[in-house]
Amino acid sequence: MSAYRSHTCGQLTAVNAGETIRLSGWVHRVRDHGGVLFIDLRDHYGITQVIADSDSPAFSALEKLRAETVIRIDGKVKLRDASLVNPKLPTGEIEVYATAMEILGPSDDLPLPVFGDQDYPEETRLAYRFLDLRRESLHQNIMLRSRVVKWLRDAMWNQGFTEFQTPIITASSPEGARDFLVPSRLHPGKFYALPQAPQQFKQLIMVAGFDKYFQIAPCFRDEDPRADRSPTDFYQLDLEMSFVEQEDVFAAIQPVIQGLFEEFGNGRPVDAVWPRIPYAESMLKYGSDKPDLRNPIEMQVVSDHFRGSGFAIFAKLLEQEGTEVRAIPAPTGGSRKFADRMNAFAQSQGLPGMGYIFWRKAEDGSTEPAGPIAKALGPEKTEAIRLQLGLGEGDAAFFLGGKPEAFEAVAGRARNEIGRELGLTDENQFKFAWIVDFPMYEKGEDGRIDFSHNPFSMPQGGLEALSGDPLAVKGYQYDLACNGYELISGAIRNHRPEIMFRAFELAGYGHDEVEKRFGGMVKAFRYGAPPHGGCAAGIDRIVMLLADEQNIREVIMFPMNQRAEDLMMGAPSEPTNEQLRELRLRVLPRE
Amino acid sequence: MSAYRSHTCGQLTAVNAGETIRLSGWVHRVRDHGGVLFIDLRDHYGITQVIADSDSPAFSALEKLRAETVIRIDGKVKLRDASLVNPKLPTGEIEVYATAMEILGPSDDLPLPVFGDQDYPEETRLAYRFLDLRRESLHQNIMLRSRVVKWLRDAMWNQGFTEFQTPIITASSPEGARDFLVPSRLHPGKFYALPQAPQQFKQLIMVAGFDKYFQIAPCFRDEDPRADRSPTDFYQLDLEMSFVEQEDVFAAIQPVIQGLFEEFGNGRPVDAVWPRIPYAESMLKYGSDKPDLRNPIEMQVVSDHFRGSGFAIFAKLLEQEGTEVRAIPAPTGGSRKFADRMNAFAQSQGLPGMGYIFWRKAEDGSTEPAGPIAKALGPEKTEAIRLQLGLGEGDAAFFLGGKPEAFEAVAGRARNEIGRELGLTDENQFKFAWIVDFPMYEKGEDGRIDFSHNPFSMPQGGLEALSGDPLAVKGYQYDLACNGYELISGAIRNHRPEIMFRAFELAGYGHDEVEKRFGGMVKAFRYGAPPHGGCAAGIDRIVMLLADEQNIREVIMFPMNQRAEDLMMGAPSEPTNEQLRELRLRVLPRE
Repeated sequence: MSAYRSHTCGQLTAVNAGETIRLSGWVHRVRDHGGVLFIDLRDHYGITQVIADSDSPAFSALEKLRAETVIRIDGKVKLRDASLVNPKLPTGEIEVYATAMEILGPSDDLPLPVFGDQDYPEETRLAYRFLDLRRESLHQNIMLRSRVVKWLRDAMWNQGFTEFQTPIITASSPEGARDFLVPSRLHPGKFYALPQAPQQFKQLIMVAGFDKYFQIAPCFRDEDPRADRSPTDFYQLDLEMSFVEQEDVFAAIQPVIQGLFEEFGNGRPVDAVWPRIPYAESMLKYGSDKPDLRNPIEMQVVSDHFRGSGFAIFAKLLEQEGTEVRAIPAPTGGSRKFADRMNAFAQSQGLPGMGYIFWRKAEDGSTEPAGPIAKALGPEKTEAIRLQLGLGEGDAAFFLGGKPEAFEAVAGRARNEIGRELGLTDENQFKFAWIVDFPMYEKGEDGRIDFSHNPFSMPQGGLEALSGDPLAVKGYQYDLACNGYELISGAIRNHRPEIMFRAFELAGYGHDEVEKRFGGMVKAFRYGAPPHGGCAAGIDRIVMLLADEQNIREVIMFPMNQRAEDLMMGAPSEPTNEQLRELRLRVLPRE
Repeated sequence: MSAYRSHTCGQLTAVNAGETIRLSGWVHRVRDHGGVLFIDLRDHYGITQVIADSDSPAFSALEKLRAETVIRIDGKVKLRDASLVNPKLPTGEIEVYATAMEILGPSDDLPLPVFGDQDYPEETRLAYRFLDLRRESLHQNIMLRSRVVKWLRDAMWNQGFTEFQTPIITASSPEGARDFLVPSRLHPGKFYALPQAPQQFKQLIMVAGFDKYFQIAPCFRDEDPRADRSPTDFYQLDLEMSFVEQEDVFAAIQPVIQGLFEEFGNGRPVDAVWPRIPYAESMLKYGSDKPDLRNPIEMQVVSDHFRGSGFAIFAKLLEQEGTEVRAIPAPTGGSRKFADRMNAFAQSQGLPGMGYIFWRKAEDGSTEPAGPIAKALGPEKTEAIRLQLGLGEGDAAFFLGGKPEAFEAVAGRARNEIGRELGLTDENQFKFAWIVDFPMYEKGEDGRIDFSHNPFSMPQGGLEALSGDPLAVKGYQYDLACNGYELISGAIRNHRPEIMFRAFELAGYGHDEVEKRFGGMVKAFRYGAPPHGGCAAGIDRIVMLLADEQNIREVIMFPMNQRAEDLMMGAPSEPTNEQLRELRLRVLPRE
């Protein structure tokens, strides 16, 4: 017999009754029922109930066991009394009568219990991560993550993709975030960088003639602390394909993502129809480029009803160029109380407030509009708005006006809030949409034109499109939105050097700077580059959605805390003088 | 029809004759046969022959094509004349008559041709890696590597292992090599390190109650340049198991490695019986702890025959303590010419020479020994040696004497040389052996005791064994040797803090230093650590063996050069002042 176990703690059933067996695992819980000890012995696979009475030679040793001690048990499998069978445990039909016990790994008093559901401060949980990981929900999350990654890999291979690892110690790859730098010892004063994404490498893989690449890729960004992301790194399912257009990429990835959610979504319905929503339409209807389509509310432009109307605030506003009034319909939200709550929400978001109309039953039994806007607009325009929005008695509509970029984001959050408050959003499902036709450029606060997303995307219309208004140029650039999150981002790439230089020129980057920053890739494009495109899906985010967790640290085995520290391993730490000397670096004193 | 292709360049066969199709790919080669153009169009999947005569509207454009231009071809599939069928190509039965062509990606003149087998300087190949990767043998090596990694993953899952990613930005993990450091911006003056191996994390995963872990793990070591390894990082199949003994680990990994070599070994025989060879025996018989067992030669101790003999050099040597004489039998090596060549080899390796005896046919037809040693020893002892070594006429034996540690390594290399020179080594196969019972400690040149391998291994005999002579302590530590390479290294770990502290104490590490350097793991072992063990297999080395390549850069997609530079992406490079300022670092001038 093996030194440690004949079976795992999740394996024994009635079939094994009468067998002499050996188990090893952690002491999950000990109960003393008047001279009979009940020990829940736990390993990765499950829990088996071990019993011992005073006749057992192991009794006195077992009696003294501390929780989380690792032990080996020899014993005999017995059927439980019918009344004691636990149908919730796979091993619930049996128990093991212990005849011998050996302590394999003793345990001190626990700073963090494994048994039970108490909440513990996150810093304690991170410092004792090896204990926290024994707890069931975190253990299951980590297993889920592993299975998700395996499933994704298998699905990608089945779609004809090949996985390649790209370098981790490499050159700076300006992707808009900060690089982590790695000083070179052999070339003192020079630094490597950890890749923010394998963007350039995957494009080089296409230029190198590999047709369909994917990678479960670690990406490194030196981010400022934020609750919902790791401050150091994250994983993405990265893919790239040659000789494709946008719809080819969609066709390749949808079965993977949809299949994944069907497999691991715990039975929650998964949308099979993924609409293509142009960026501008998404911003208008949902106030977001990652709309939550579980929420049925769609905003509409209602400027015409307010133009020159008696509602002076909006009427005046609309005289300015580039302004609009948009309505958020709120079916079933037709009460002053609800309208006031939403108004307060808008104020909490930094707006002066949110006008509203709601429709109630009048004393004569007819439907009548209420609220200050209705009064100022008059019955005809108010009715026209009601008809446009398809609302009726018991419903409400909220209004925001001004330049869309100033209120769109708040409108989007108000839409979420309204959907949730009114129970219109069926949260128990996954709804997807491709957001397409992103603008290539945007105007920064300083009035300068810059890339709005990925500078490597192919502009729609190619070189010609780049000779007109930059702000009118759309890119072959797309995101996948799911339940209000951006799950995937991607693009058809710009593989023509002449278009690339022109695209960068519009954003204020000279020829030399492009050569300097993206030299490897630009050089490659001169020797026969295929049209190509791809995307990347955020693994951490996907696992969070599947596990229904809000904190990224619940789905990572060994996460950093929010200050980018590993409390268990003690990172970062002071280097030795010898290390600094070899790197020819000096740490400057605090200013 | 898709904008780029209806088929890949490896897909069309006689079945498609008559179809109108579209292909995209690289212009591999253009030949002009008197007004008929033959174009080999290549993509990842294969090569298709495209033809055009002057009747084709695409003719004049095709005529001007440069090699490696990316084009799209519309055309019609035609059967080749029987005499022109190329049975070596899957598409060899057909050709495509081109009716239209579009240039998708033009190419400048090539610094490195893709078609043909010319050798190019490695620096050129690395600077234009995207071109080099299009060449068939490198392309195939990279695909092989990808398939090997996938195969390993599948095999590990099938064995019940789960893959987890461990942190890449983490704490220094002293494994004997130099860390790559990563300065922290949020904690200026402190540094992260890239892991030399996931050693501590995988042990923590066991302590956290996950039972069988594996990972295709990147490992980072700041190594000085050497031809056969990457100066920055390498990949290993890393695994760890709880509740196991040494043989359990062997049983888990052998089917994986053996299966891999059977799958990808190109039909070369793969040994199914993997002997366990104690370290001391391996050093004696093979002069190496990674013996090449394709070579049948086994060395033997022959000291007794020389002690007090007429061969004064060895007789005198043997009077010193700790000395030995060992013989390398060389069947079929029985000529003075061969013996002299091997003697010269030993001299090239820094030894004064290598004594020998060879046995030849005497004039009277009997077998007679020859060489100076035979003369000095006299016939009786010479015959005893011959009998011990099982040699006969036409054979030779070589002799090395002294303290084994002084000549063992050269003896091992001589054994290789002899096996190769005499054709005794059948290179066309894979032979494996587990080398076991490694000593825990060794004496350094300064006379100090240090760990000979992994400090985390469990000493055989536990705490008790650590109270005697450290040099006599063996560890549950093992390597897998294959064809003269170390493919795997592993151990049963020391999971008991008290044994760990004692083990470190013997190597001169105080309690505080152990706490400081391995604090996270030592802490974890106090809260119920299971017995555990594992190993790690070098992926790069495995792929090199399978692909029969000598240079690691032939099996890595984007390798560094030997000076740890990425010539294509330009890494490492100068940081910006802003980056240094944020990290509060200054680069010191060269001394």
